[in-house]
Amino acid sequence: MFRHAQLESVKAFVGDPAHAGVPLHGRIQRAIRQLILDGALEVGRPLPASRPLAQSLGVSRDTVEAAYRQLHAEGFIERQVGSGSCVSRRARLFAGANAPRRPQAAAQAPRLSARGQALHGTGGVNTVSAPRPFAPGVPETRNFPLHVWERLQREVIREHGSAVLAHSPAQGMASLRRTIADYINLERGGHATPDRVLVLTSSQQALTLCANLLLDAGDRILVEDPMYHGASRAFDAAGLRRVPIAVDAEGMQVARLQRQGHDARAVFLTPSHQFPTGAMLSLDRRLALVHWANQNDAWIIEDDYDSEFHYAGKPTACVQGLDPHERTVYIGTFTKSLFPGLRIGYMVLPSALVAPMTVARSLMDGHSPTLSQLTLARFMEAGHFGAYVRAMRGIYVARRDALLQLVRAHLSDFVVPQVPAGGMQLPCFFKPGIDEQAVLEGARQAGVALQGLTALHASRTPQPGLLLGFAAYTPVEMEMAIKPLATVLRRVTGQV
Amino acid sequence: MFRHAQLESVKAFVGDPAHAGVPLHGRIQRAIRQLILDGALEVGRPLPASRPLAQSLGVSRDTVEAAYRQLHAEGFIERQVGSGSCVSRRARLFAGANAPRRPQAAAQAPRLSARGQALHGTGGVNTVSAPRPFAPGVPETRNFPLHVWERLQREVIREHGSAVLAHSPAQGMASLRRTIADYINLERGGHATPDRVLVLTSSQQALTLCANLLLDAGDRILVEDPMYHGASRAFDAAGLRRVPIAVDAEGMQVARLQRQGHDARAVFLTPSHQFPTGAMLSLDRRLALVHWANQNDAWIIEDDYDSEFHYAGKPTACVQGLDPHERTVYIGTFTKSLFPGLRIGYMVLPSALVAPMTVARSLMDGHSPTLSQLTLARFMEAGHFGAYVRAMRGIYVARRDALLQLVRAHLSDFVVPQVPAGGMQLPCFFKPGIDEQAVLEGARQAGVALQGLTALHASRTPQPGLLLGFAAYTPVEMEMAIKPLATVLRRVTGQV
Repeated sequence: MFRHAQLESVKAFVGDPAHAGVPLHGRIQRAIRQLILDGALEVGRPLPASRPLAQSLGVSRDTVEAAYRQLHAEGFIERQVGSGSCVSRRARLFAGANAPRRPQAAAQAPRLSARGQALHGTGGVNTVSAPRPFAPGVPETRNFPLHVWERLQREVIREHGSAVLAHSPAQGMASLRRTIADYINLERGGHATPDRVLVLTSSQQALTLCANLLLDAGDRILVEDPMYHGASRAFDAAGLRRVPIAVDAEGMQVARLQRQGHDARAVFLTPSHQFPTGAMLSLDRRLALVHWANQNDAWIIEDDYDSEFHYAGKPTACVQGLDPHERTVYIGTFTKSLFPGLRIGYMVLPSALVAPMTVARSLMDGHSPTLSQLTLARFMEAGHFGAYVRAMRGIYVARRDALLQLVRAHLSDFVVPQVPAGGMQLPCFFKPGIDEQAVLEGARQAGVALQGLTALHASRTPQPGLLLGFAAYTPVEMEMAIKPLATVLRRVTGQV
Repeated sequence: MFRHAQLESVKAFVGDPAHAGVPLHGRIQRAIRQLILDGALEVGRPLPASRPLAQSLGVSRDTVEAAYRQLHAEGFIERQVGSGSCVSRRARLFAGANAPRRPQAAAQAPRLSARGQALHGTGGVNTVSAPRPFAPGVPETRNFPLHVWERLQREVIREHGSAVLAHSPAQGMASLRRTIADYINLERGGHATPDRVLVLTSSQQALTLCANLLLDAGDRILVEDPMYHGASRAFDAAGLRRVPIAVDAEGMQVARLQRQGHDARAVFLTPSHQFPTGAMLSLDRRLALVHWANQNDAWIIEDDYDSEFHYAGKPTACVQGLDPHERTVYIGTFTKSLFPGLRIGYMVLPSALVAPMTVARSLMDGHSPTLSQLTLARFMEAGHFGAYVRAMRGIYVARRDALLQLVRAHLSDFVVPQVPAGGMQLPCFFKPGIDEQAVLEGARQAGVALQGLTALHASRTPQPGLLLGFAAYTPVEMEMAIKPLATVLRRVTGQV
């Protein structure tokens, strides 16, 4: 028999509008199963006979019988002719499975693999879903022509029908690979063909693939110092040993590769617009880099994450286009140039890497969504991509200048801005004696989002400062955030 | 000066409608850069003076000057007052970068890491983009209510605006995690809470995460024999040692875990509907499995890939719901129940694994697309998911029966079908003496898609046969494929 509370619980479950999609007998069966899993009905407890339970619930006896049959088939109850049904003896083993867990169970360190612990230890990559000043690396999306995107998606659905719902090749849809190759060749001076493009979800996925496919745990990878934290975490997670190479106004100091790079299997860099300093790798260094990689049988991993947004002329041709030896993996993304929620990035690969990378991607997560690939290809083919990037370039350069003015007006006692020729963020170096950690903590309390520069450095004597994102924020929004930041700086430096 | 062909090539590039989005001076600059990268303009070659080139191209002299300035800034040309411009000496280093590569460059084995070679060696997971009978594991998508999906997506965009374009949390959108948890609790007897759901792109991604986060290379994982090839490849790619446990009519023979599982860190299985045999793990074995895992501090990886399609009553409660010790990782996917192009799957995790798995996922590829998560959550909340699954269940059971009739009518001399109580495929065992490899090869030539059973077995004496998919094909489509398959079998067995 049920206690009153148990009967009420069954009634509530059965009457819950959220369960309207489940047939009546299924709702009764699930409600009773829930009571058993929760331990509310102990082993051997007799269940009500079907007739009185049916009356209590206002359903037919057949309905209750159907629920009992299913519970019996699942092994939750035992039935004996004449003596009715009772909770199965086996319930002893799982009773309480649904009870609230002891808090310590969750707090205990789980048994992870060694590589799992390394992965967890990196802290991962935190993406910003509701960006506020001055979170860096986030594009403006409030101007995106969503109506155009929706219209193109409708066209794609009309033309392709239910094929947009099917699996698609792990390498990516042919139409998107073609438009990406055309774009890289035209805009980036690259040497891409559709059969060497691999469509991915993000440059983060590209970095993880490169870290695992090209290097083993313990292998050395040459990186910029300072460097992009998403890349350093992907490399740490893969167990690589990072060898930092200093960056100056012309980008990575490639001459150091000859001395520091002797047994490295790969070099990672952001040549168009170094993250975070904004430096552009000079042509001479690009050529020296290609020469070094070829001599040392090493891979160049070129992350061209925001080359669309270059404000003084065009960025120079990408390293991949200058490399006659097929040593360069080129990484691009639509996260910055279109919108982060899209989840489409790509690599342009040396031909020998196409098959291994495609296989690895198929094991990692299969392939990218079919419909958004087709829609993006059409968006690019129809010229919307180029037009949108041009429009955003104008907006971003104006925002960069607005932020620069704000920094000069409000923060000039504390920081020296380093104006970038491109990208979405303004590096600002602290004047001597300012405690970066104290500023970051004060800003956090004041609700201002900040990325410190120190955390991006491998060297022991980093130049502290801030990386202020400007792309996603209007001048008014930035002004509203720069004032509390100035207050924090005054307080930290004892000027208040 | 340009040769005639070079001038024509510049003109063609400038006039190409595909380049209409690039300003005129940019097109000229890119056309000349292309000639240099291709090696068509050798080092030191003087370029035409800006005035005659402007005349040839029908543009203003300023336009040509702008192109030359950019080429100079990029380092592709040198300019000397009085003597005009010429191709930079540095061009020697990259001339020919764009020339067609020597075929052997591509054919050479690339320098992969050891783990990269292991990954490549698995062959990956091939998804079927245009399925034809009898490719297994593919759902029917021609009946999917795309108009409903589109309408809900429009609603989501109207309500959320450009927030649908932003990054979203690595763990997944809260609304989708909530609907998934409700679904698992109601339909699968699970114990899920939204904070223990991790949204992924696919069950393949779940398998790769588990293989790497819970086990190290060389660790033992207990698996079903025969087993799902997507899982075995993910485990092989991660360097795990698979320990096969035989399957019978009640699923994995869990009693063998005591003897064979002593130092295994995890067990992988498909309890609702074993892949490929279709067996359902009995309740007693589920309970013994949970007991074993708790005693051995091992993880249970429960892949519930197609439990929505159970044709005889409901599948019994999932293992996760029977496990009071939080040892079970539950894997689900919308690839089978909705459509493969969606790319949304999920895990329900022990609370201690939520943070490490979320961190690992953020490093692997960030997060899932924002808009499709919101649309799916609404599709489920509004009851469309339940209604669609019920409708498809009716269609699939009819197709299973249709295929069974066809097999009995056309293949009864060769195979014994084993009728599954659920799922999307019919295992058919060969009668003695039939060469599976010859049948697969003959079918391939006849254009019939087949999955052999032998490849899914670890044991040396597998029972050969075929796994015939039926979900994605109408009875007429299956009939058109069964006849050539019968012809192949007759030929292979010498009956023709």
